[in-house]
Amino acid sequence: MTDSTMSDMPLTVGRLLIRGRDLFPDSEVVTWTPTGQRRTPFAEVARRARALAGGLRELGVGPGDRVGVLAANVQEYVEAYLGIPGMGAVLHTVNTKLQLDQLAEVIDHAQDRVLIVDDELLDVLAPVAPRLGSVERIVTIGDSPTHDRLPVPQVGYEDLLASATPLVDWPDVDERSAAALCYTTGTTGDPKGVAYSHRSTVLHALAFAGSVGKFLSDHDRFLVVVPLFHVNGWGLPHVGWMVGADLVLPGRSMQPADVCRLITAERPTVSGGVPAVWSAIADHAEAIGADLSSIEILFLGGSAPSAALVERLQRRHGVRVVQAWGMTETSPMVLISAPPRSAAPGSETEWTVKAGRPVPLTEVRIADEAGAVLPADGTSVGELEVRGPWITARYYERDAADRFHDGWLRTGDLAVIEPSGFVRITDRVKDVIKSGGEWISSVRLEELLAGHPDVVEAAVIGIPDPRWDERPFACVVLRPGAVLDVEALGAHLAAAVPRWWVPQSWTAVTDLPRTSVGKIDKKALRADFHAGRLRPIGGAAVAAGREDVR
Amino acid sequence: MTDSTMSDMPLTVGRLLIRGRDLFPDSEVVTWTPTGQRRTPFAEVARRARALAGGLRELGVGPGDRVGVLAANVQEYVEAYLGIPGMGAVLHTVNTKLQLDQLAEVIDHAQDRVLIVDDELLDVLAPVAPRLGSVERIVTIGDSPTHDRLPVPQVGYEDLLASATPLVDWPDVDERSAAALCYTTGTTGDPKGVAYSHRSTVLHALAFAGSVGKFLSDHDRFLVVVPLFHVNGWGLPHVGWMVGADLVLPGRSMQPADVCRLITAERPTVSGGVPAVWSAIADHAEAIGADLSSIEILFLGGSAPSAALVERLQRRHGVRVVQAWGMTETSPMVLISAPPRSAAPGSETEWTVKAGRPVPLTEVRIADEAGAVLPADGTSVGELEVRGPWITARYYERDAADRFHDGWLRTGDLAVIEPSGFVRITDRVKDVIKSGGEWISSVRLEELLAGHPDVVEAAVIGIPDPRWDERPFACVVLRPGAVLDVEALGAHLAAAVPRWWVPQSWTAVTDLPRTSVGKIDKKALRADFHAGRLRPIGGAAVAAGREDVR
Repeated sequence: MTDSTMSDMPLTVGRLLIRGRDLFPDSEVVTWTPTGQRRTPFAEVARRARALAGGLRELGVGPGDRVGVLAANVQEYVEAYLGIPGMGAVLHTVNTKLQLDQLAEVIDHAQDRVLIVDDELLDVLAPVAPRLGSVERIVTIGDSPTHDRLPVPQVGYEDLLASATPLVDWPDVDERSAAALCYTTGTTGDPKGVAYSHRSTVLHALAFAGSVGKFLSDHDRFLVVVPLFHVNGWGLPHVGWMVGADLVLPGRSMQPADVCRLITAERPTVSGGVPAVWSAIADHAEAIGADLSSIEILFLGGSAPSAALVERLQRRHGVRVVQAWGMTETSPMVLISAPPRSAAPGSETEWTVKAGRPVPLTEVRIADEAGAVLPADGTSVGELEVRGPWITARYYERDAADRFHDGWLRTGDLAVIEPSGFVRITDRVKDVIKSGGEWISSVRLEELLAGHPDVVEAAVIGIPDPRWDERPFACVVLRPGAVLDVEALGAHLAAAVPRWWVPQSWTAVTDLPRTSVGKIDKKALRADFHAGRLRPIGGAAVAAGREDVR
Repeated sequence: MTDSTMSDMPLTVGRLLIRGRDLFPDSEVVTWTPTGQRRTPFAEVARRARALAGGLRELGVGPGDRVGVLAANVQEYVEAYLGIPGMGAVLHTVNTKLQLDQLAEVIDHAQDRVLIVDDELLDVLAPVAPRLGSVERIVTIGDSPTHDRLPVPQVGYEDLLASATPLVDWPDVDERSAAALCYTTGTTGDPKGVAYSHRSTVLHALAFAGSVGKFLSDHDRFLVVVPLFHVNGWGLPHVGWMVGADLVLPGRSMQPADVCRLITAERPTVSGGVPAVWSAIADHAEAIGADLSSIEILFLGGSAPSAALVERLQRRHGVRVVQAWGMTETSPMVLISAPPRSAAPGSETEWTVKAGRPVPLTEVRIADEAGAVLPADGTSVGELEVRGPWITARYYERDAADRFHDGWLRTGDLAVIEPSGFVRITDRVKDVIKSGGEWISSVRLEELLAGHPDVVEAAVIGIPDPRWDERPFACVVLRPGAVLDVEALGAHLAAAVPRWWVPQSWTAVTDLPRTSVGKIDKKALRADFHAGRLRPIGGAAVAAGREDVR
């Protein structure tokens, strides 16, 4: 090999911070509060991030130490995103909606030395106080900086910043060292930690900025409704800081009414989130006539958006939608569904409801249960495997070798890869319904049901069947005034999928259980079914006799 | 420090190649030929790049070996861009317009083992044949694959590909190893080599894709009129391959008539180049009524475009212009002049004629002659220094420590940095005119002169003056029919710059000498002056007496 002559400059979060401060001093972090928006220019946010770093150092935090944050999407969280990795420590973004047991578990597993906590969340933390053995200090954001039931020494965030000597220079850090730590939500097991590096964070931000279907710059304003504890806030804080886009944060209210007010007042150009959240925002906007059209591009991810939701956002609200696929293990951005050059005019939604194509530097493939790689032929279904410089290759201090395959991450999603390179997710491996030796895609059935005018949303799970092993069971949330017409819904499905996919078991529910990040919780649904809390009624196919079904 | 859990996947050109092949198999490389465009899909270009790599391996080329290319912008050059770094060898892009001495020198300095040469350029190479000691084989592109006066064994490019066993898997290469080697044009000294790494190439492509003022995707077509030997073709081949944009190449003709025909036929959306080339293309387009408006964004660089050219391209041709600043040592992209959010409506051109703001991961500063860093205050003038992961930290096998300053590259440009972060280049260090202890910006005078209706372009050099050390001398190319009215031109300048900047010495010339990459060659102009080949005539200020001038 021949050595290059290029600079060895490392890729670090600290350099992103310096860039935003020096090039975009007047760009703003805007935080909703009940009494109006708080606005702080990047120059001041950067100054406070340095003061935070200085204060944490005075509390004894050193390179590689973990600092946990439990907070809503407020300005201080952005300061933590910059200042903690900037000083060489590790930002642990704690999911505040975890069950108490898991909350205590992740803080203990990460061995957080300091926790930064919204005062509203001190009550959440109090019951697990005896299990916070690693925590030496709690730094409280807000006006009520102490809590009687927390035995750990507490200090107010503003007091810490006011008394600290700001860090003058960011230390040189190895680009492969950890910048942030995030745990999976653990819906299917114990939470597992993923430690993002400085390198992966910077590369992800660069690739994101060039891949989302719109040129991003200091003319943009990012509305960050994705919780900042959820996979780097999908990268929006880093990208916004890098390009100089304002960051508009919903603060402590994620109520659709408040988010709609924020959109109307602040006119964001870019946002992202899970379909359920944006469906609720669209409902409210339609009810009050709020204008969402400042949003030029919206990434929907976390679960697949229905064609109905995509069309509604695009046609009724003038909001262009792309689907973004990723997971905690992938930083998260891997797939983006921006339509390809071959898309026929008017066919955009067909592309948007696919998971998309890999962004630069990421690679995807599918493999069968024996580990054989399957062709990208548009029909073979296998487990989606991904790799790339911002995709985890292991879990943080935990053995889970079965989740990796020759250097590729096994995603737990079943997928088809089309010859166009577009990935379609057909199911979660654990949610797929195995009926008579063949697979039924619960995702496809849910997507079709959500497109029916009587239906708000639906979840389909497999339930035991003596003859076919499993059969689908559809749990449907109906629109106000609609009744559960299983013959009509069954006919609606049969027009698009094989007749043997059509469920014989149905139930209407008022809402669906969700995980802490807003995904439908099928594990909870299955538990409800087995506990007898969900009672199926038979569909037309049942009346017609089982033999007709297959 | 805490280790991250992220994958160690290296950033390599080989992975870009695989991406383009697999995701964008139908995107095309389109090459102009006298008999019509040659079109080859990425899948086939990738196959040929692998065959080229296999053929070179059979010729004995191994990891780290240098392979030189002397060619016009043809498809085979793109194959070399991908296949040579892909196999772990080093692509040496040879400037075919170098003086013969320098041509021989760079091939010898690089120790190229194989040269790939357009058959039209064999004649250029023949006179230096005795000095090609390192070269074991010449691979000839085109129909005339051998040349009598070249003693080196020769093989046709197509013959090599046809007989080769294509490389099946790209080897793993260290991301910091050299991918390509490019020499500076050596207008002010001997050519110096810059060795780009795989890492720098990939990072540059990623940052470029997110920074140019327009979202780039497989809906785009890049017209690559920048010679592919000139600083990675400004990154266009890598970026195009990464996002799936077609690459439209002018082949062996850079005549404005042919380029206009190519634009009209192929409707490119993105292009770049030096102002002189695009001025000539605009001239021709206006003469024949050709439509350039498919070009949504055009990067002008290499030298500063005049406001007149920018306005003309934007208003008359509907082509949006940004200025891009860089050099061989910087891969090249460092500054982009896309207007900031603070730009007043209608003021875009004022921003475009500045060099711009640094793209992500690059940093800039200015320093005085003693090495002290100067403030970004919009008035301090110092030498521009830059750093970043695609900026060279040394030269290839050559000592030039004086070109670096504490890890920053000294660019040889004098600049002002505005509080907005925008850089304005005021001069080359070697071109600046030092008059009475103060600096006169030749660039500013040239820009103003080019905005006068009588003037096509101008170059201003410093000439010796017994009292003021130097005074400016303006060499002006006049529009057809115009006469050199030094009083009018002097008054035009005096309206915008201090009166003592106005030249007393003028001459009209039919054209200006240019370097091999199209920049005005002031070294040649100064030599012409000192040899008495340029005879100044006095201006108004001379008649008024020297004392009035200062």
